[in-house]
Amino acid sequence: MRIIEVGPRDGLQNESVPVPTEVKSRFVSALFQAGLKEIEVTSFVSPKWVPQLGDAAELLAMLEPGPITSVLVPNQKGLERALECGVKRIALFTAASDAFTQRNINMTVRQSLDVFKGLAESFRAAQPDGWIRGYVSTAWECPYAGRIAMTQTVSVATELIAMGVNEVSIGDTIGVAAPTEVKALTKLLLAEIPAEKLAMHFHDTRGTAIANVAASYELGIRAFDSSASGLGGCPYAKGAGGNLATEDLIYFLEREGIATGVNQLKLAQASLEVLSTLGKVPTAKAQIAALAAASEQ
Amino acid sequence: MRIIEVGPRDGLQNESVPVPTEVKSRFVSALFQAGLKEIEVTSFVSPKWVPQLGDAAELLAMLEPGPITSVLVPNQKGLERALECGVKRIALFTAASDAFTQRNINMTVRQSLDVFKGLAESFRAAQPDGWIRGYVSTAWECPYAGRIAMTQTVSVATELIAMGVNEVSIGDTIGVAAPTEVKALTKLLLAEIPAEKLAMHFHDTRGTAIANVAASYELGIRAFDSSASGLGGCPYAKGAGGNLATEDLIYFLEREGIATGVNQLKLAQASLEVLSTLGKVPTAKAQIAALAAASEQ
Repeated sequence: MRIIEVGPRDGLQNESVPVPTEVKSRFVSALFQAGLKEIEVTSFVSPKWVPQLGDAAELLAMLEPGPITSVLVPNQKGLERALECGVKRIALFTAASDAFTQRNINMTVRQSLDVFKGLAESFRAAQPDGWIRGYVSTAWECPYAGRIAMTQTVSVATELIAMGVNEVSIGDTIGVAAPTEVKALTKLLLAEIPAEKLAMHFHDTRGTAIANVAASYELGIRAFDSSASGLGGCPYAKGAGGNLATEDLIYFLEREGIATGVNQLKLAQASLEVLSTLGKVPTAKAQIAALAAASEQ
Repeated sequence: MRIIEVGPRDGLQNESVPVPTEVKSRFVSALFQAGLKEIEVTSFVSPKWVPQLGDAAELLAMLEPGPITSVLVPNQKGLERALECGVKRIALFTAASDAFTQRNINMTVRQSLDVFKGLAESFRAAQPDGWIRGYVSTAWECPYAGRIAMTQTVSVATELIAMGVNEVSIGDTIGVAAPTEVKALTKLLLAEIPAEKLAMHFHDTRGTAIANVAASYELGIRAFDSSASGLGGCPYAKGAGGNLATEDLIYFLEREGIATGVNQLKLAQASLEVLSTLGKVPTAKAQIAALAAASEQ
């Protein structure tokens, strides 16, 4: 069972309030302390576009070595900056929808795959034992193009695997999918890609994320992305929830008898300083429940 | 497919702020207008214990006739008040745990079943075509006694059915259950009780409710309780979420291709006046998403 915590990157990149690097560093440490083993900590996207993550190099320098961290890398310049920091795990971000990638990364899906091929080769040359993750967002539906053909998503995912990425993360970016369609796409993906190279990245915008985790777990998926406290509003629907909360994911897995090694109270507390910096209160259900249970004792 | 909306009763009884009767009446009307067909509108519990619902008779007099409404009835006195109002559907509330019923209704489970037998007979005598629902709360776990033996829950449910209630609603009162245990109990219940006499009442305190709906739907359950905007905090865990939000339930069902006849935007708006009276903002995920989508158009 792998949980890939994406709050420090995917969460904070969607928050408009800047978070001091020291607060981010303590956030990442607290997440590791809670028992999470893989964290995507930042992105080497241009600070011009995402100033919230402009401190990527400073943050990496501040983190204690040891735990598995990855960073998002959008282009050659970002890769160079990441390699200068000695990064051993990178993530590449594309989608199943041209309408989405054009607005998000200013390329068609095809162009992004061509760019990534070069990035993957450069990265492998510098870090032969490195790990590459590929994101396929809008896997079920795109906020601009509507429903996405499953074959399109499978095609992007298999092309990423073919260029040597170690795993693909299949994203319900706007949080619309429900279990039946999740199972349908998961089955098609599993026909082409081994389960151990697949991760699911659900958003909980309409409350379906845990049901989708259950559905894909049933089919053999054993890697899920989530964000502490559900950090990261969805920029495409104001006020709407974003990422699946790690607290909800861990509660679900543990209650199902699937050991995660995560301490639920420590996890519930790990994001409190960041939330307070953002002027927010906890909204993740299992987080609120864990904090309430602790305060009653 | 039946959705039993319990917000006006189960939701408001757990809110400390009183809601004017006219606001409740408009709330119920708006829920029917949104397409919901069954609503538990109030409780004839003693106003001494639950002053929030002390206006039960006034509210019933204010509602337009037609749609299916039910009321909770705790005892003979409550039944008499309900019958005076011409009520045709009543609900009886017990649990699978003595520790819970003793704190909640001041009886053991056994005593409550004996009382209900008398209530059911009196009700049938007055309303031969009436409908009785029996609640079995703490079906999986009790906040005081911990895990509940599945045989205990099945035994209470079958005894209710045997005394002639039309359906039993199986409650995860503190919102802890996960799909595997939901399926296990549902299977045991279905071995004794036909699916059309079973409803599931999930709380979403830790984010598992929709996954539990999916699990029990898969086994043939076609009736689910929910509360508009997830109204009704859980009184046993401060700050924690309560009922499954009707908005999340309807979104899930519709996305799964299961027609509910409910207009999701009207549903999202139906609770806004009540929320504002309570000094709250919407927190149900699909409700926020629906309101955000509407405001962008």
